Amino acid sequence: MLPDPLLHLVELLARLPGVGEKTAQRFALYLVAEKSGTAQALGVALHELGQRVKPCQRCGNIAEVDEHGKAICLVCRDTRRDPALLCIVAKVQDLLAIERSGAMRGRYFVLGRLLSPLDGIGPDELPLQKLFERISGDGVREVIVATPPSVDGEATALLLARELSARNVVVSRIASGVPHGGDLEFADQITLGRAIEGRRSIDSR
Amino acid sequence: MLPDPLLHLVELLARLPGVGEKTAQRFALYLVAEKSGTAQALGVALHELGQRVKPCQRCGNIAEVDEHGKAICLVCRDTRRDPALLCIVAKVQDLLAIERSGAMRGRYFVLGRLLSPLDGIGPDELPLQKLFERISGDGVREVIVATPPSVDGEATALLLARELSARNVVVSRIASGVPHGGDLEFADQITLGRAIEGRRSIDSR
Repeated sequence: MLPDPLLHLVELLARLPGVGEKTAQRFALYLVAEKSGTAQALGVALHELGQRVKPCQRCGNIAEVDEHGKAICLVCRDTRRDPALLCIVAKVQDLLAIERSGAMRGRYFVLGRLLSPLDGIGPDELPLQKLFERISGDGVREVIVATPPSVDGEATALLLARELSARNVVVSRIASGVPHGGDLEFADQITLGRAIEGRRSIDSR
Repeated sequence: MLPDPLLHLVELLARLPGVGEKTAQRFALYLVAEKSGTAQALGVALHELGQRVKPCQRCGNIAEVDEHGKAICLVCRDTRRDPALLCIVAKVQDLLAIERSGAMRGRYFVLGRLLSPLDGIGPDELPLQKLFERISGDGVREVIVATPPSVDGEATALLLARELSARNVVVSRIASGVPHGGDLEFADQITLGRAIEGRRSIDSR
């Protein structure tokens, strides 16, 4: 029923994360019907994207390609940041979330994936060699492992802690517990268990 | 935090129906990171879309542009269809759904929008003139109004019935009731009311 160019577009849109065939078709029909030129503008933006935006060569964050064809992100360019403090995250979205918190004054390293035996992702699939080079090259002394508090995230954190312990760096893990504004009544058992395990003394001086 | 070309892409993706800022950012980051060339392919597909696919000049369904620059959809090209039977739908998705049912042997007219006083869409915003021309030009004798059974859809159906009654066509409305496989227990009051109101005698000969 649909013309070929549209079917092809639907197929490509269905590759987007969380987008199925039906949603992709909805997107495609919207793009055909709307009149303000979104389809064209999106086409141009995607074309430019490939040429102007790449993962940062140092940390994996997204970066604009400079005139020499190099891609170094804004965080890695920021000389006010502490090069000895490195925060390891699973994906760029997590890096952006931490940046929004304003709590990180060091730099980042994006793993891109987590250990996941079920999906066949073992230690060899992680960019550990690149991480070690980064740590020795930058003289990193402290590593904060900010992988998510999920099964895969914890497994990855353990692996990183073990691998980095021999390299003379202090390794820490972000705290896991009841989120700010969260209700204890509705927190799951594991979260509450972690909140109690990770309790801190209140300084009431 | 994000480079300009990416922010621009996020802004465009957020125009897609049901996509907010966060989802758009997720799409954009996926497109930057993935390596099989989806971003480029999507850019090309969107560029082609604007040139090869347009709303059908006769009914508003999507159509592939032919070598003469004309856009006539497959339904309008299909000479086995009854030109005297016209089904009016709100949007292309509804046309595709009816086509999948295989129950419509006539042609279509896509309104593109429904009466919606709250959104400032009155009768003047509907393509009524084009509809009338279609009806007289094609010699349409029967019109099935297949706008959705919502407040806006019903209002539009009433308007169409009133406008078309003077034009010597039989106007009918699609049935509304408990859907096939649906459970009466969980059907809402209005649906049940319609199901009873629209009851049909059982032919048990």
